[in-house]
Amino acid sequence: MKFIIQRDQLIAGVQDVMKAISSRTVIPILTGMKIEAKQHGITLTGSDSDISIESYIPAEEDGVVHVEQIEEGTIILQAKYFPDIVRKLPEKTVEIEVDANLKVTIRSGKAEFNLNGQDAEEYPHLPKLETENSFEMSIELLKSMIKQTVFAVSTMETRPILTGVNLKLANNVLSFTATDSHRLAKREIPVTDANIEFQQVVVPGKSLTELYKILDDSEETVEISVTNNQILFRTKHLNFLSRLLDGNYPETSRLIPEQSKTKLQVKTKELLSTIDRASLLAKEERNNVVRLFTQGDSVIEISSNSPEVGTVVEEISVELIEGEELKISFSSKYMIDALKAIEYDDVTIEFTGAMRPFVIRPLNDDSILQLILPVRTY
Amino acid sequence: MKFIIQRDQLIAGVQDVMKAISSRTVIPILTGMKIEAKQHGITLTGSDSDISIESYIPAEEDGVVHVEQIEEGTIILQAKYFPDIVRKLPEKTVEIEVDANLKVTIRSGKAEFNLNGQDAEEYPHLPKLETENSFEMSIELLKSMIKQTVFAVSTMETRPILTGVNLKLANNVLSFTATDSHRLAKREIPVTDANIEFQQVVVPGKSLTELYKILDDSEETVEISVTNNQILFRTKHLNFLSRLLDGNYPETSRLIPEQSKTKLQVKTKELLSTIDRASLLAKEERNNVVRLFTQGDSVIEISSNSPEVGTVVEEISVELIEGEELKISFSSKYMIDALKAIEYDDVTIEFTGAMRPFVIRPLNDDSILQLILPVRTY
Repeated sequence: MKFIIQRDQLIAGVQDVMKAISSRTVIPILTGMKIEAKQHGITLTGSDSDISIESYIPAEEDGVVHVEQIEEGTIILQAKYFPDIVRKLPEKTVEIEVDANLKVTIRSGKAEFNLNGQDAEEYPHLPKLETENSFEMSIELLKSMIKQTVFAVSTMETRPILTGVNLKLANNVLSFTATDSHRLAKREIPVTDANIEFQQVVVPGKSLTELYKILDDSEETVEISVTNNQILFRTKHLNFLSRLLDGNYPETSRLIPEQSKTKLQVKTKELLSTIDRASLLAKEERNNVVRLFTQGDSVIEISSNSPEVGTVVEEISVELIEGEELKISFSSKYMIDALKAIEYDDVTIEFTGAMRPFVIRPLNDDSILQLILPVRTY
Repeated sequence: MKFIIQRDQLIAGVQDVMKAISSRTVIPILTGMKIEAKQHGITLTGSDSDISIESYIPAEEDGVVHVEQIEEGTIILQAKYFPDIVRKLPEKTVEIEVDANLKVTIRSGKAEFNLNGQDAEEYPHLPKLETENSFEMSIELLKSMIKQTVFAVSTMETRPILTGVNLKLANNVLSFTATDSHRLAKREIPVTDANIEFQQVVVPGKSLTELYKILDDSEETVEISVTNNQILFRTKHLNFLSRLLDGNYPETSRLIPEQSKTKLQVKTKELLSTIDRASLLAKEERNNVVRLFTQGDSVIEISSNSPEVGTVVEEISVELIEGEELKISFSSKYMIDALKAIEYDDVTIEFTGAMRPFVIRPLNDDSILQLILPVRTY
């Protein structure tokens, strides 16, 4: 195997693939990176068996040559040193050559590294996904759906299914739902031209977080295909494969109240910074609890106290208060997460009493929903 | 006590003073910040008993009012919450008021915090330094002297005196020396108008590192005064007081070889990046050892090997090689630290054999010296 590659292209590919490689894997060969040279281009692969990432660098693209003098072959390289080596090489091109004894030589300018490679035969075969049953969406939209939901997954392994985001595609609507049983985040978008439907595809939150980091805003669309136990996100240069979580995702629609007793409309940023301030003294306590009181028909009061440290109180003028007077306590962290996920200037919050879940939505947009269970403090 | 202060001024002062406050101190009151209001301005104080920092915010400066409605007084506030509170307040001004029961009220816009203060009488009195015996220097120069030496102090408590930088002022020359007994860094500058001299003032490396971070490049000069066990750095708005280390600093001048057998002249950046690359595979090993071989009269070879991982070798064309052929091994970390400290394009390196310390200096400048002990590998 041999090829000469543009260093910048190699750096970008290695950086993407490294996101799937863990030094703590139980399968030693997975601490390595697979490098496959074909005449049409170079494929880098990394995997921790939950997530697998392939990055493809075409030999030529839009008339620009990325890779030259390709002699085909495959090798596994220790991933621990490779990213630093590539990043610190002196010249703009890198030559990688493998001899019959799996010795890998990396040359750039006058610098020469000789590393021990491993036989690619020992690397596990990644499942090939049929991509006929797939749908496309914009990368920007996918990233926004991930960002608006993934923070609400459970971090506790007691109910593993809740550590994932539930994807559902039916009646031309794609929805992402995440809940840790104390709060819930949901986002829906219309999808056209999808030739598949599914009720329950639970993707580990960790996979979506990595996918979010790796998806390149400069590319336009991502193709998504699903099987029983895998999901594949495919862009022009990237294959991102994740296992799915086993088990039944709970039915969440009945959690969402259909009526409300008190309704607020408020500036998102103002509420966010007030709750952020109120939470400062509550740091120590587990839930960072803050209180919200309605005051007449245009003011709410946010407060918190921590007996050892002190108290904080602040009033906000709101756009609208409708319905019953309300005194409620909730986790400031959940509220801050929810408000940050809603990228609108104004939100409505609908309450059905101090002990029932309440719902936060952008003003005049039902496609995003954030639900929070209050905390009993009286 | 009461005053209304510009939030930005308060943030900057709090941030400086926080550098001296540790939550792990054995004296509980030192987890607090002292706030003293006088008609002429506000003084904030923090201390971990090794370092004490006072930041002064004048009521008025250059015709700009920073503090208003001052009622004099002093209070100790829990430092843990105060920086975040100040940073997140909604308005540009902050009102701080203390009542007879030491309750502190912080108001900004509609936000109001009520915190429990502590009696300032319980705060230890900081030593007052006589500042008659002092000298002045530019902040820029002081920062450069710290940066060029402090990295070489010892991090081991086995010889506590080596965890400090030795300051010496004699014959109108100020010198900073640091050594961990494996390497040494020294910088000298001429000082005029100093009305003191001292042979040995050992300032903890940690103090100088904090001082470096806190010194504001926008101010011009710093006044330095010294007593038996304290050193004070004073700028317009800042008093930085550090204890000195007890004990005799070793005589280092005899470590520095007076002659050399091999002399190189090389581009600093080129040598730095080559050694950085050579050190990549040596990560695991304690000393990150790399080898340097001279090759004829214009090339040196830098190499390293790590039996498990592989080898790396690179040649550099140098400006000049004089004297004997040389094969030497040394810690790449020490070499990288030394080369980074020398902010010149070209360096000379003088060797007196593979087992003797070698000396790195900027070309045509003797005010900076970096000395490294080689490693025996043959």
